Amino acid sequence: MLEIQPFVTLVGAGPGDAELITLKGIKAIKAADVILYDALVNAELLDYAKPSCTKIYVGKRAERLSTSQDQINKLLVDYALTYGHVVRLKGGDPFVFGRGGEELEYVHQHNIPTAVIPGISSSVGLTGLQQIPLTHRGVSESFWVITGSTSDGRLSDDLYTAVKTAATIVVLMGFSKLKQIVALYQENGRGDLPIALIQNGSLVNERIALGTINTILEEADKNLLGVPAIIVLGEVVAKHQRFETIKSELQDIEA
Amino acid sequence: MLEIQPFVTLVGAGPGDAELITLKGIKAIKAADVILYDALVNAELLDYAKPSCTKIYVGKRAERLSTSQDQINKLLVDYALTYGHVVRLKGGDPFVFGRGGEELEYVHQHNIPTAVIPGISSSVGLTGLQQIPLTHRGVSESFWVITGSTSDGRLSDDLYTAVKTAATIVVLMGFSKLKQIVALYQENGRGDLPIALIQNGSLVNERIALGTINTILEEADKNLLGVPAIIVLGEVVAKHQRFETIKSELQDIEA
Repeated sequence: MLEIQPFVTLVGAGPGDAELITLKGIKAIKAADVILYDALVNAELLDYAKPSCTKIYVGKRAERLSTSQDQINKLLVDYALTYGHVVRLKGGDPFVFGRGGEELEYVHQHNIPTAVIPGISSSVGLTGLQQIPLTHRGVSESFWVITGSTSDGRLSDDLYTAVKTAATIVVLMGFSKLKQIVALYQENGRGDLPIALIQNGSLVNERIALGTINTILEEADKNLLGVPAIIVLGEVVAKHQRFETIKSELQDIEA
Repeated sequence: MLEIQPFVTLVGAGPGDAELITLKGIKAIKAADVILYDALVNAELLDYAKPSCTKIYVGKRAERLSTSQDQINKLLVDYALTYGHVVRLKGGDPFVFGRGGEELEYVHQHNIPTAVIPGISSSVGLTGLQQIPLTHRGVSESFWVITGSTSDGRLSDDLYTAVKTAATIVVLMGFSKLKQIVALYQENGRGDLPIALIQNGSLVNERIALGTINTILEEADKNLLGVPAIIVLGEVVAKHQRFETIKSELQDIEA
Protein backbone atom coordinates (compact mmCIF):
# COMPACT_ATOMS: atom_id res chain seq x y z
CA MET A 1 0.00 0.00 0.00
CA LEU A 2 1.21 3.47 -0.82
CA GLU A 3 1.76 5.74 2.15
CA ILE A 4 -0.59 8.73 2.29
CA GLN A 5 1.24 12.05 2.05
CA PRO A 6 -1.06 14.65 3.53
CA PHE A 7 -0.90 18.05 1.85
CA VAL A 8 -3.27 21.00 1.65
CA THR A 9 -3.23 23.59 -1.14
CA LEU A 10 -5.36 26.72 -0.91
CA VAL A 11 -6.28 27.74 -4.46
CA GLY A 12 -7.88 31.00 -5.55
CA ALA A 13 -10.49 30.22 -8.22
CA GLY A 14 -10.80 33.84 -9.35
CA PRO A 15 -13.89 36.07 -9.61
CA GLY A 16 -16.28 33.72 -11.46
CA ASP A 17 -15.32 33.18 -15.12
CA ALA A 18 -13.73 29.71 -15.28
CA GLU A 19 -10.91 31.10 -17.45
CA LEU A 20 -9.86 33.58 -14.80
CA ILE A 21 -8.03 30.96 -12.75
CA THR A 22 -4.26 30.58 -13.09
CA LEU A 23 -2.43 27.75 -14.85
CA LYS A 24 -0.99 26.78 -11.46
CA GLY A 25 -4.50 26.62 -10.02
CA ILE A 26 -5.59 24.20 -12.76
CA LYS A 27 -2.50 22.04 -12.10
CA ALA A 28 -3.43 21.80 -8.42
CA ILE A 29 -7.03 20.82 -9.24
CA LYS A 30 -5.73 18.11 -11.58
CA ALA A 31 -3.48 16.73 -8.84
CA ALA A 32 -6.09 16.82 -6.08
CA ASP A 33 -7.34 13.71 -4.29
CA VAL A 34 -10.07 15.77 -2.60
CA ILE A 35 -11.47 19.22 -3.44
CA LEU A 36 -13.40 21.30 -0.91
CA TYR A 37 -15.09 24.13 -2.78
CA ASP A 38 -17.13 27.24 -2.03
CA ALA A 39 -20.41 28.68 -3.28
CA LEU A 40 -18.71 31.32 -5.43
CA VAL A 41 -16.42 28.88 -7.23
CA ASN A 42 -17.31 28.19 -10.87
CA ALA A 43 -18.40 24.52 -10.98
CA GLU A 44 -16.79 24.08 -14.44
CA LEU A 45 -13.42 24.08 -12.70
CA LEU A 46 -14.26 20.76 -11.04
CA ASP A 47 -14.18 19.12 -14.50
CA TYR A 48 -10.37 19.40 -14.45
CA ALA A 49 -10.20 17.00 -11.48
CA LYS A 50 -9.21 13.38 -11.99
CA PRO A 51 -12.09 10.85 -11.95
CA SER A 52 -11.10 9.45 -8.57
CA CYS A 53 -11.15 12.91 -6.94
CA THR A 54 -13.74 13.45 -4.19
CA LYS A 55 -15.47 16.84 -4.56
CA ILE A 56 -17.18 18.33 -1.53
CA TYR A 57 -19.28 21.46 -1.44
CA VAL A 58 -18.66 23.49 1.72
CA GLY A 59 -20.23 26.73 0.55
CA LYS A 60 -21.55 29.35 2.84
CA ARG A 61 -23.45 32.25 1.43
CA ALA A 62 -24.12 35.46 3.30
CA GLU A 63 -25.85 34.57 6.55
CA ARG A 64 -26.82 30.99 5.74
CA LEU A 65 -23.92 28.87 6.88
CA SER A 66 -24.04 25.41 5.39
CA THR A 67 -20.69 24.34 6.78
CA SER A 68 -19.07 26.24 9.64
CA GLN A 69 -15.46 27.40 9.46
CA ASP A 70 -14.54 24.98 12.27
CA GLN A 71 -16.02 22.10 10.30
CA ILE A 72 -14.14 23.13 7.16
CA ASN A 73 -10.88 23.29 9.10
CA LYS A 74 -11.45 19.78 10.45
CA LEU A 75 -12.44 18.42 7.04
CA LEU A 76 -9.19 19.76 5.54
CA VAL A 77 -7.12 17.87 8.08
CA ASP A 78 -9.22 14.70 8.07
CA TYR A 79 -9.24 14.39 4.29
CA ALA A 80 -5.52 15.18 4.00
CA LEU A 81 -4.68 12.45 6.52
CA THR A 82 -6.98 9.94 4.83
CA TYR A 83 -6.64 10.72 1.13
CA GLY A 84 -3.50 12.84 0.62
CA HIS A 85 -3.65 16.03 -1.41
CA VAL A 86 -6.59 18.26 -0.50
CA VAL A 87 -7.27 21.34 -2.64
CA ARG A 88 -9.27 24.03 -0.88
CA LEU A 89 -10.82 25.91 -3.82
CA LYS A 90 -12.01 29.38 -2.86
CA GLY A 91 -13.65 32.18 -4.85
CA GLY A 92 -11.36 35.13 -5.67
CA ASP A 93 -8.12 34.98 -3.69
CA PRO A 94 -7.83 32.78 -0.56
CA PHE A 95 -6.50 35.62 1.60
CA VAL A 96 -8.85 38.41 0.57
CA PHE A 97 -11.59 37.91 3.18
CA GLY A 98 -11.38 34.20 2.39
CA ARG A 99 -10.39 33.09 5.91
CA GLY A 100 -7.50 31.24 4.28
CA GLY A 101 -5.21 32.31 7.12
CA GLU A 102 -7.38 30.53 9.67
CA GLU A 103 -7.45 27.37 7.57
CA LEU A 104 -3.66 27.36 7.24
CA GLU A 105 -3.15 27.87 10.96
CA TYR A 106 -5.36 24.89 11.75
CA VAL A 107 -3.68 22.66 9.17
CA HIS A 108 -0.20 23.67 10.38
CA GLN A 109 -1.18 22.74 13.95
CA HIS A 110 -1.49 19.20 12.60
CA ASN A 111 1.93 19.39 10.95
CA ILE A 112 0.52 19.01 7.47
CA PRO A 113 2.49 20.90 4.81
CA THR A 114 0.66 23.51 2.75
CA ALA A 115 0.90 25.68 -0.34
CA VAL A 116 -1.05 28.71 -1.50
CA ILE A 117 -1.89 29.52 -5.10
CA PRO A 118 -3.19 33.08 -5.37
CA GLY A 119 -6.27 33.96 -7.37
CA ILE A 120 -7.68 37.04 -9.05
CA SER A 121 -9.52 38.90 -6.31
CA SER A 122 -12.88 40.24 -7.47
CA SER A 123 -11.69 43.64 -6.25
CA VAL A 124 -9.01 43.71 -8.95
CA GLY A 125 -10.58 41.47 -11.58
CA LEU A 126 -14.15 42.72 -11.79
CA THR A 127 -13.11 46.37 -11.92
CA GLY A 128 -10.55 45.47 -14.59
CA LEU A 129 -13.05 43.66 -16.81
CA GLN A 130 -15.30 46.73 -16.61
CA GLN A 131 -12.28 48.86 -17.60
CA ILE A 132 -12.38 50.83 -14.38
CA PRO A 133 -8.70 51.40 -13.55
CA LEU A 134 -8.07 50.94 -9.81
CA THR A 135 -5.27 53.48 -10.03
CA HIS A 136 -4.72 56.26 -12.55
CA ARG A 137 -2.05 58.97 -12.72
CA GLY A 138 -3.33 62.25 -11.33
CA VAL A 139 -6.53 60.59 -10.07
CA SER A 140 -5.67 57.86 -7.58
CA GLU A 141 -2.36 56.71 -6.11
CA SER A 142 -3.81 53.73 -4.29
CA PHE A 143 -6.70 51.35 -3.86
CA TRP A 144 -8.14 50.13 -0.59
CA VAL A 145 -10.18 46.93 -0.34
CA ILE A 146 -12.48 46.78 2.71
CA THR A 147 -14.93 44.18 3.93
CA GLY A 148 -18.58 45.20 4.13
CA SER A 149 -19.28 42.30 6.43
CA THR A 150 -17.47 42.54 9.77
CA SER A 151 -17.88 39.75 12.31
CA ASP A 152 -20.12 41.92 14.55
CA GLY A 153 -22.19 43.44 11.74
CA ARG A 154 -21.02 47.07 12.05
CA LEU A 155 -19.52 49.12 9.22
CA SER A 156 -15.72 48.67 9.26
CA ASP A 157 -13.85 51.49 11.02
CA ASP A 158 -11.65 51.60 7.97
CA LEU A 159 -14.55 52.99 5.89
CA TYR A 160 -14.76 56.04 8.17
CA THR A 161 -11.14 56.79 7.31
CA ALA A 162 -11.46 55.75 3.66
CA VAL A 163 -14.21 58.31 2.99
CA LYS A 164 -11.71 61.10 3.73
CA THR A 165 -9.04 59.91 1.28
CA ALA A 166 -8.49 60.07 -2.49
CA ALA A 167 -7.91 56.30 -2.62
CA THR A 168 -10.11 54.13 -4.82
CA ILE A 169 -12.25 52.14 -2.38
CA VAL A 170 -13.57 48.66 -3.12
CA VAL A 171 -16.05 47.19 -0.66
CA LEU A 172 -16.55 43.43 -0.87
CA MET A 173 -19.57 41.67 0.66
CA GLY A 174 -21.06 45.08 1.42
CA PHE A 175 -24.12 45.31 -0.79
CA SER A 176 -26.52 44.95 2.15
CA LYS A 177 -24.83 47.99 3.73
CA LEU A 178 -25.03 50.17 0.61
CA LYS A 179 -27.46 52.66 2.21
CA GLN A 180 -25.21 53.10 5.23
CA ILE A 181 -22.18 53.59 2.99
CA VAL A 182 -24.03 56.14 0.83
CA ALA A 183 -25.09 58.02 3.99
CA LEU A 184 -21.49 58.04 5.25
CA TYR A 185 -20.22 59.52 1.99
CA GLN A 186 -23.00 62.12 1.93
CA GLU A 187 -22.25 63.17 5.52
CA ASN A 188 -18.68 63.74 4.37
CA GLY A 189 -19.73 65.99 1.50
CA ARG A 190 -18.92 63.45 -1.19
CA GLY A 191 -22.34 63.12 -2.81
CA ASP A 192 -20.88 63.70 -6.27
CA LEU A 193 -18.28 60.93 -6.05
CA PRO A 194 -18.60 58.36 -8.85
CA ILE A 195 -19.58 54.87 -7.70
CA ALA A 196 -20.11 51.54 -9.46
CA LEU A 197 -21.86 48.35 -8.37
CA ILE A 198 -20.92 45.15 -10.16
CA GLN A 199 -23.08 42.06 -9.71
CA ASN A 200 -22.23 38.54 -10.93
CA GLY A 201 -19.04 40.02 -12.32
CA SER A 202 -17.27 38.13 -15.14
CA LEU A 203 -20.29 35.83 -15.65
CA VAL A 204 -22.87 35.92 -18.47
CA ASN A 205 -25.41 37.51 -16.13
CA GLU A 206 -23.06 40.33 -15.09
CA ARG A 207 -24.81 43.63 -14.31
CA ILE A 208 -23.39 47.02 -13.53
CA ALA A 209 -24.89 50.16 -12.05
CA LEU A 210 -22.98 53.42 -12.46
CA GLY A 211 -23.75 56.73 -10.83
CA THR A 212 -22.71 59.08 -8.09
CA ILE A 213 -23.21 58.63 -4.36
CA ASN A 214 -26.40 60.73 -4.66
CA THR A 215 -27.89 58.69 -7.52
CA ILE A 216 -26.66 55.15 -6.96
CA LEU A 217 -29.51 53.84 -4.78
CA GLU A 218 -31.97 54.68 -7.56
CA GLU A 219 -29.64 53.14 -10.16
CA ALA A 220 -29.35 49.96 -8.09
CA ASP A 221 -33.14 49.71 -7.88
CA LYS A 222 -33.53 50.30 -11.63
CA ASN A 223 -30.97 47.64 -12.47
CA LEU A 224 -32.27 45.16 -9.88
CA LEU A 225 -28.84 44.58 -8.46
CA GLY A 226 -28.50 42.16 -5.58
CA VAL A 227 -25.85 40.04 -3.93
CA PRO A 228 -23.16 39.14 -4.65
CA ALA A 229 -22.08 42.58 -5.77
CA ILE A 230 -18.97 44.62 -5.23
CA ILE A 231 -18.97 48.38 -4.58
CA VAL A 232 -16.33 50.63 -6.17
CA LEU A 233 -16.00 54.22 -5.00
CA GLY A 234 -13.68 56.83 -6.47
CA GLU A 235 -12.97 59.29 -9.25
CA VAL A 236 -11.56 56.42 -11.36
CA VAL A 237 -15.11 55.11 -11.81
CA ALA A 238 -15.68 58.10 -14.13
CA LYS A 239 -13.17 56.43 -16.49
CA HIS A 240 -15.78 53.78 -17.30
CA GLN A 241 -16.77 54.14 -20.94
CA ARG A 242 -20.45 54.63 -20.17
CA PHE A 243 -19.89 57.19 -17.45
CA GLU A 244 -19.93 60.22 -19.78
CA THR A 245 -23.50 59.37 -20.82
CA ILE A 246 -24.56 59.17 -17.20
CA LYS A 247 -22.93 62.51 -16.43
CA SER A 248 -24.75 64.29 -19.28
CA GLU A 249 -28.04 62.72 -18.16
CA LEU A 250 -27.40 64.09 -14.70
CA GLN A 251 -26.68 67.54 -16.11
CA ASP A 252 -29.92 67.43 -18.10
CA ILE A 253 -31.83 66.74 -14.89
CA GLU A 254 -30.05 69.53 -13.05
CA ALA A 255 -30.55 72.04 -15.93
CA MET B 1 -6.59 40.37 -48.88
CA LEU B 2 -8.18 40.02 -45.47
CA GLU B 3 -9.28 43.25 -43.86
CA ILE B 4 -7.37 44.16 -40.74
CA GLN B 5 -9.56 44.26 -37.62
CA PRO B 6 -7.73 46.40 -35.11
CA PHE B 7 -8.15 45.31 -31.49
CA VAL B 8 -6.14 45.87 -28.33
CA THR B 9 -6.20 43.57 -25.30
CA LEU B 10 -4.49 44.55 -22.06
CA VAL B 11 -3.34 41.38 -20.34
CA GLY B 12 -2.04 41.05 -16.81
CA ALA B 13 0.89 38.61 -16.82
CA GLY B 14 0.88 38.13 -13.04
CA PRO B 15 3.69 38.62 -10.52
CA GLY B 16 6.52 36.70 -12.22
CA ASP B 17 6.01 32.92 -12.22
CA ALA B 18 4.86 32.00 -15.74
CA GLU B 19 2.14 29.76 -14.27
CA LEU B 20 0.51 32.64 -12.42
CA ILE B 21 -1.17 34.01 -15.54
CA THR B 22 -4.84 33.16 -16.22
CA LEU B 23 -6.11 30.73 -18.86
CA LYS B 24 -7.77 33.72 -20.57
CA GLY B 25 -4.43 35.53 -20.62
CA ILE B 26 -2.79 32.58 -22.39
CA LYS B 27 -5.64 32.49 -24.92
CA ALA B 28 -5.08 36.16 -25.73
CA ILE B 29 -1.32 35.62 -26.18
CA LYS B 30 -2.03 32.73 -28.55
CA ALA B 31 -4.37 34.92 -30.61
CA ALA B 32 -2.06 37.96 -30.76
CA ASP B 33 -0.61 39.33 -34.00
CA VAL B 34 1.63 41.65 -32.00
CA ILE B 35 2.70 41.57 -28.35
CA LEU B 36 4.10 44.63 -26.58
CA TYR B 37 5.62 43.44 -23.29
CA ASP B 38 7.19 44.95 -20.19
CA ALA B 39 10.38 44.36 -18.23
CA LEU B 40 8.60 42.51 -15.42
CA VAL B 41 6.83 40.05 -17.72
CA ASN B 42 8.14 36.47 -17.65
CA ALA B 43 9.66 35.89 -21.11
CA GLU B 44 8.48 32.24 -21.09
CA LEU B 45 4.96 33.54 -21.74
CA LEU B 46 6.03 34.71 -25.19
CA ASP B 47 6.50 31.05 -26.20
CA TYR B 48 2.69 30.70 -26.31
CA ALA B 49 2.51 33.18 -29.20
CA LYS B 50 2.02 31.95 -32.76
CA PRO B 51 5.17 31.91 -34.94
CA SER B 52 4.03 34.89 -37.02
CA CYS B 53 3.48 37.06 -33.93
CA THR B 54 5.70 40.14 -33.64
CA LYS B 55 7.05 40.56 -30.08
CA ILE B 56 8.25 43.97 -28.99
CA TYR B 57 9.94 44.84 -25.72
CA VAL B 58 8.78 48.19 -24.37
CA GLY B 59 10.07 47.79 -20.83
CA LYS B 60 10.80 50.63 -18.54
CA ARG B 61 12.48 49.95 -15.28
CA ALA B 62 12.56 52.44 -12.42
CA GLU B 63 14.04 55.68 -13.71
CA ARG B 64 15.54 54.36 -16.94
CA LEU B 65 12.82 54.77 -19.51
CA SER B 66 13.50 52.75 -22.62
CA THR B 67 10.15 53.51 -24.23
CA SER B 68 8.06 56.44 -23.03
CA GLN B 69 4.37 56.05 -22.25
CA ASP B 70 3.49 58.29 -25.22
CA GLN B 71 5.47 56.05 -27.52
CA ILE B 72 3.80 52.92 -26.14
CA ASN B 73 0.36 54.46 -26.66
CA LYS B 74 1.23 55.28 -30.28
CA LEU B 75 2.69 51.82 -30.91
CA LEU B 76 -0.51 50.18 -29.65
CA VAL B 77 -2.60 52.13 -32.17
CA ASP B 78 -0.13 51.84 -35.06
CA TYR B 79 0.29 48.09 -34.67
CA ALA B 80 -3.44 47.49 -34.22
CA LEU B 81 -4.21 49.40 -37.43
CA THR B 82 -1.45 47.61 -39.35
CA TYR B 83 -1.53 44.07 -37.94
CA GLY B 84 -4.82 43.56 -36.09
CA HIS B 85 -4.85 42.10 -32.60
CA VAL B 86 -2.32 43.69 -30.29
CA VAL B 87 -1.78 42.21 -26.84
CA ARG B 88 -0.30 44.60 -24.31
CA LEU B 89 1.30 42.23 -21.80
CA LYS B 90 1.96 43.88 -18.46
CA GLY B 91 3.45 42.61 -15.19
CA GLY B 92 0.91 42.03 -12.41
CA ASP B 93 -2.48 43.54 -13.22
CA PRO B 94 -2.81 46.21 -15.95
CA PHE B 95 -4.67 48.65 -13.69
CA VAL B 96 -2.57 48.38 -10.55
CA PHE B 97 -0.06 51.17 -11.23
CA GLY B 98 0.27 49.76 -14.73
CA ARG B 99 -0.95 52.90 -16.54
CA GLY B 100 -3.43 50.66 -18.35
CA GLY B 101 -6.10 53.34 -18.05
CA GLU B 102 -4.00 55.81 -20.04
CA GLU B 103 -3.35 53.24 -22.74
CA LEU B 104 -7.06 52.44 -23.08
CA GLU B 105 -7.97 56.14 -23.27
CA TYR B 106 -5.54 56.66 -26.12
CA VAL B 107 -6.67 53.57 -28.00
CA HIS B 108 -10.34 54.52 -27.57
CA GLN B 109 -9.61 57.97 -29.03
CA HIS B 110 -8.75 56.09 -32.22
CA ASN B 111 -12.01 54.10 -32.07
CA ILE B 112 -10.21 50.81 -31.67
CA PRO B 113 -12.12 48.26 -29.55
CA THR B 114 -10.42 46.89 -26.46
CA ALA B 115 -10.61 44.21 -23.81
CA VAL B 116 -8.93 43.81 -20.45
CA ILE B 117 -7.83 40.51 -18.92
CA PRO B 118 -6.95 41.01 -15.28
CA GLY B 119 -3.80 39.57 -13.74
CA ILE B 120 -2.61 38.59 -10.28
CA SER B 121 -1.29 41.80 -8.78
CA SER B 122 1.98 41.29 -6.92
CA SER B 123 0.28 42.93 -3.92
CA VAL B 124 -2.10 39.97 -3.64
CA GLY B 125 -0.03 37.20 -5.22
CA LEU B 126 3.37 37.62 -3.59
CA THR B 127 1.92 37.98 -0.10
CA GLY B 128 -0.23 34.91 -0.78
CA LEU B 129 2.68 32.74 -1.88
CA GLN B 130 4.52 33.70 1.33
CA GLN B 131 1.39 32.73 3.25
CA ILE B 132 0.93 36.23 4.63
CA PRO B 133 -2.87 36.70 4.68
CA LEU B 134 -3.79 40.21 3.50
CA THR B 135 -6.85 40.09 5.74
CA HIS B 136 -7.48 38.01 8.86
CA ARG B 137 -10.42 37.98 11.28
CA GLY B 138 -9.68 40.05 14.36
CA VAL B 139 -6.45 41.39 12.84
CA SER B 140 -7.22 43.28 9.62
CA GLU B 141 -10.51 44.11 7.91
CA SER B 142 -8.89 45.59 4.81
CA PHE B 143 -5.78 45.94 2.71
CA TRP B 144 -4.55 49.12 1.05
CA VAL B 145 -2.17 49.07 -1.91
CA ILE B 146 -0.19 52.28 -2.36
CA THR B 147 2.42 53.34 -4.89
CA GLY B 148 5.88 54.14 -3.57
CA SER B 149 6.69 56.01 -6.74
CA THR B 150 4.54 59.10 -7.28
CA SER B 151 5.03 61.14 -10.44
CA ASP B 152 6.75 63.96 -8.49
CA GLY B 153 8.92 61.72 -6.31
CA ARG B 154 7.27 62.48 -2.94
CA LEU B 155 5.85 59.89 -0.55
CA SER B 156 2.14 59.41 -1.37
CA ASP B 157 -0.23 61.39 0.88
CA ASP B 158 -2.11 58.14 1.33
CA LEU B 159 0.80 56.71 3.33
CA TYR B 160 0.43 59.48 5.93
CA THR B 161 -3.16 58.32 6.46
CA ALA B 162 -2.35 54.62 6.13
CA VAL B 163 0.11 54.69 9.02
CA LYS B 164 -2.75 55.60 11.37
CA THR B 165 -5.01 52.67 10.39
CA ALA B 166 -5.20 48.95 11.17
CA ALA B 167 -5.31 48.13 7.43
CA THR B 168 -2.67 45.86 5.94
CA ILE B 169 -0.56 48.18 3.77
CA VAL B 170 1.25 47.03 0.63
CA VAL B 171 3.63 49.50 -1.01
CA LEU B 172 4.59 48.71 -4.59
CA MET B 173 7.62 50.28 -6.29
CA GLY B 174 8.60 51.77 -2.95
CA PHE B 175 11.83 50.01 -2.04
CA SER B 176 13.94 53.12 -2.67
CA LYS B 177 11.77 54.96 -0.14
CA LEU B 178 12.02 52.30 2.56
CA LYS B 179 13.97 54.56 4.95
CA GLN B 180 11.37 57.32 4.63
CA ILE B 181 8.55 54.86 5.21
CA VAL B 182 10.29 53.39 8.27
CA ALA B 183 10.80 56.92 9.64
CA LEU B 184 7.12 57.76 9.08
CA TYR B 185 6.00 54.65 10.99
CA GLN B 186 8.47 55.34 13.81
CA GLU B 187 7.23 58.95 14.13
CA ASN B 188 3.76 57.50 14.55
CA GLY B 189 4.81 55.20 17.37
CA ARG B 190 4.57 52.04 15.28
CA GLY B 191 8.13 50.80 15.59
CA ASP B 192 6.99 47.33 16.63
CA LEU B 193 4.72 46.77 13.63
CA PRO B 194 5.63 43.64 11.64
CA ILE B 195 6.89 44.29 8.11
CA ALA B 196 7.99 42.09 5.22
CA LEU B 197 10.00 42.83 2.09
CA ILE B 198 9.61 40.42 -0.82
CA GLN B 199 12.08 40.59 -3.71
CA ASN B 200 11.75 38.72 -7.02
CA GLY B 201 8.58 37.22 -5.65
CA SER B 202 7.34 33.93 -7.16
CA LEU B 203 10.65 33.43 -9.02
CA VAL B 204 13.47 30.99 -8.19
CA ASN B 205 15.56 33.84 -6.79
CA GLU B 206 12.80 35.06 -4.45
CA ARG B 207 14.05 36.57 -1.20
CA ILE B 208 12.18 37.74 1.85
CA ALA B 209 13.13 39.88 4.81
CA LEU B 210 10.92 39.81 7.89
CA GLY B 211 11.10 42.04 10.91
CA THR B 212 9.54 44.99 12.63
CA ILE B 213 9.68 48.64 11.56
CA ASN B 214 12.63 49.08 13.98
CA THR B 215 14.64 46.12 12.64
CA ILE B 216 13.78 45.91 8.96
CA LEU B 217 16.54 48.16 7.57
CA GLU B 218 19.14 45.88 9.13
CA GLU B 219 17.28 42.79 7.87
CA ALA B 220 17.18 44.27 4.37
CA ASP B 221 20.94 44.88 4.46
CA LYS B 222 21.62 41.35 5.73
CA ASN B 223 19.48 39.79 3.02
CA LEU B 224 20.81 42.06 0.27
CA LEU B 225 17.33 42.96 -0.90
CA GLY B 226 17.01 45.33 -3.82
CA VAL B 227 14.46 46.28 -6.44
CA PRO B 228 11.99 45.11 -7.48
CA ALA B 229 10.63 44.44 -4.01
CA ILE B 230 7.26 44.94 -2.40
CA ILE B 231 6.75 46.19 1.15
CA VAL B 232 4.04 44.69 3.37
CA LEU B 233 3.17 46.41 6.65
CA GLY B 234 0.71 45.14 9.22
CA GLU B 235 0.00 42.73 12.05
CA VAL B 236 -0.86 40.02 9.48
CA VAL B 237 2.87 39.79 8.64
CA ALA B 238 3.30 38.08 12.02
CA LYS B 239 1.25 35.20 10.59
CA HIS B 240 4.24 34.27 8.38
CA GLN B 241 5.54 30.86 9.49
CA ARG B 242 9.05 32.16 10.17
CA PHE B 243 7.92 35.19 12.15
CA GLU B 244 7.83 33.41 15.52
CA THR B 245 11.54 32.65 15.22
CA ILE B 246 12.28 36.28 14.49
CA LYS B 247 10.21 37.42 17.46
CA SER B 248 12.08 35.15 19.85
CA GLU B 249 15.42 36.34 18.44
CA LEU B 250 14.31 39.92 19.11
CA GLN B 251 13.35 38.99 22.67
CA ASP B 252 16.77 37.42 23.21
CA ILE B 253 18.42 40.67 22.13
CA GLU B 254 16.18 42.75 24.38
CA ALA B 255 16.70 40.41 27.36
